[in-house]
Amino acid sequence: MEFKPSAGWEERIVSSFARQGLMTTMGATIHPVAPGIVEIAVVPGPAVSQQHGFVHGGAVSAIADTAAGYAAVSLMPPGTAALTTEFKINFMAPAGGERIVARGEVVKAGRTLTVVQTHVFSETGGARKLIALLIATIMTLAAKDGFSD
Amino acid sequence: MEFKPSAGWEERIVSSFARQGLMTTMGATIHPVAPGIVEIAVVPGPAVSQQHGFVHGGAVSAIADTAAGYAAVSLMPPGTAALTTEFKINFMAPAGGERIVARGEVVKAGRTLTVVQTHVFSETGGARKLIALLIATIMTLAAKDGFSD
Amino acid sequence: MEFKPSAGWEERIVSSFARQGLMTTMGATIHPVAPGIVEIAVVPGPAVSQQHGFVHGGAVSAIADTAAGYAAVSLMPPGTAALTTEFKINFMAPAGGERIVARGEVVKAGRTLTVVQTHVFSETGGARKLIALLIATIMTLAAKDGFSD
Amino acid sequence: MEFKPSAGWEERIVSSFARQGLMTTMGATIHPVAPGIVEIAVVPGPAVSQQHGFVHGGAVSAIADTAAGYAAVSLMPPGTAALTTEFKINFMAPAGGERIVARGEVVKAGRTLTVVQTHVFSETGGARKLIALLIATIMTLAAKDGFSD
Repeated sequence: MEFKPSAGWEERIVSSFARQGLMTTMGATIHPVAPGIVEIAVVPGPAVSQQHGFVHGGAVSAIADTAAGYAAVSLMPPGTAALTTEFKINFMAPAGGERIVARGEVVKAGRTLTVVQTHVFSETGGARKLIALLIATIMTLAAKDGFSD
Repeated sequence: MEFKPSAGWEERIVSSFARQGLMTTMGATIHPVAPGIVEIAVVPGPAVSQQHGFVHGGAVSAIADTAAGYAAVSLMPPGTAALTTEFKINFMAPAGGERIVARGEVVKAGRTLTVVQTHVFSETGGARKLIALLIATIMTLAAKDGFSD
Repeated sequence: MEFKPSAGWEERIVSSFARQGLMTTMGATIHPVAPGIVEIAVVPGPAVSQQHGFVHGGAVSAIADTAAGYAAVSLMPPGTAALTTEFKINFMAPAGGERIVARGEVVKAGRTLTVVQTHVFSETGGARKLIALLIATIMTLAAKDGFSD
Repeated sequence: MEFKPSAGWEERIVSSFARQGLMTTMGATIHPVAPGIVEIAVVPGPAVSQQHGFVHGGAVSAIADTAAGYAAVSLMPPGTAALTTEFKINFMAPAGGERIVARGEVVKAGRTLTVVQTHVFSETGGARKLIALLIATIMTLAAKDGFSD
């Protein structure tokens, strides 16, 4: 599926991401790939681990959800805000390796609701292995009262 | 539903939780309520925020998923480990207030799979308002190679 | 949670249900319990079975989803329509017994989105055993072009 | 992803499908595409409709779930049975057209759990439009007591 980007989508996403305290806390980084496609990565380590040393499922979910949200935002007009109404994630393998990369891709951009899928990979030596799969529903809101992006 | 606890379930849960780096990073605290019921809380603040100052959906999910996992663990025999295979979460209101509390309760404890539901509340002045609802499937694994609790 | 019913909600639901060909095909019946709560039941038999004689998971999902939808509709103003945007269901036990009853209850009625939970029971001799749990997101649409209820 | 088929997978699937009363009731047909990929189709009509004449979301879910289950079964050894433990489905467009086709594809085949994704299309004149997306978790059971395929 090909999508029409919203104006200045990359700047809007990067700037909004920088204001997300949780992503800073987790040391996550963002890479806007294309309109409708956004990647967010985190490096395994004590700050994001579970009890066996792998990246915590909650951290995996957090970057997967965030990638989904910004993938949706990349297609929304300026002056709107995005709200994740729900998501579901399946975990398929332990989250280890050099980096965990969540790649969100819009499946269907509707007027009110956008459906996004995020594939989460464990990356080692440039090779990616699928470790989780998320599907999210993002609602477009008219921005007001300071709620934008 | 009433459940039979596993021996020493409170100590096992609290000790395992303390080894989860992500939970420490987020400043989360655990409260084992009863066999099959576990609460995990986090205080809103910059470390766990999204771009508008509310607690990030990823942080809400992380404590909700963790509460579900330990609720399941509380009913599992010592010498087993728990694995979240999937979860789904619906967000119903912004995550603000004094504390965000995720209360996981086992719905069905099976031999291989346990279904858990977590209600997430925004707590202010002792009053709780439902802000999110998670349902998770947790798999019981025979512990080996150091993977326990 | 207590909800304010919409005018004539029972008639609207029963009449709309009667026009659902699939429900007729499955021999399903509806029971509007209260505003925000609707039950739909089906009797196990060859018409709705899977290969081992139990009620097919697809039939269980169909009545659970429909119960969720009408529970949401019971709180919507006349002149609107309901659309299930997504649902998730966990199956916990085989669907046998005398009747399968899906009881949908609204968790949160929002302006655009309503979150509903459906507990599905196997009923025998009046006793109910939980066999599945569904959570659905229902969108309220302004009815037009003949799309209502 | 490429998968190793189980012996006689096509016959096992087609034969098991023929014993599913609900699929017969709905007039559904099965097409085993390849190991790990199975399609199930239904023709819109009064037997499977909702109140506006489109195919009922419950019927869409039923064929999507069934396609997921048989996609998983196609990779399971003979003498095992498959159990859908949970699924989630997002609806993206009304289910109309000449045929509704659910195409299940295995994402990850594990020893105990298999994750499958089903894309549901509305087909008209050979063209397919995505109308729903399902993700399911299927558990492999050792067959006994007559529970196989």
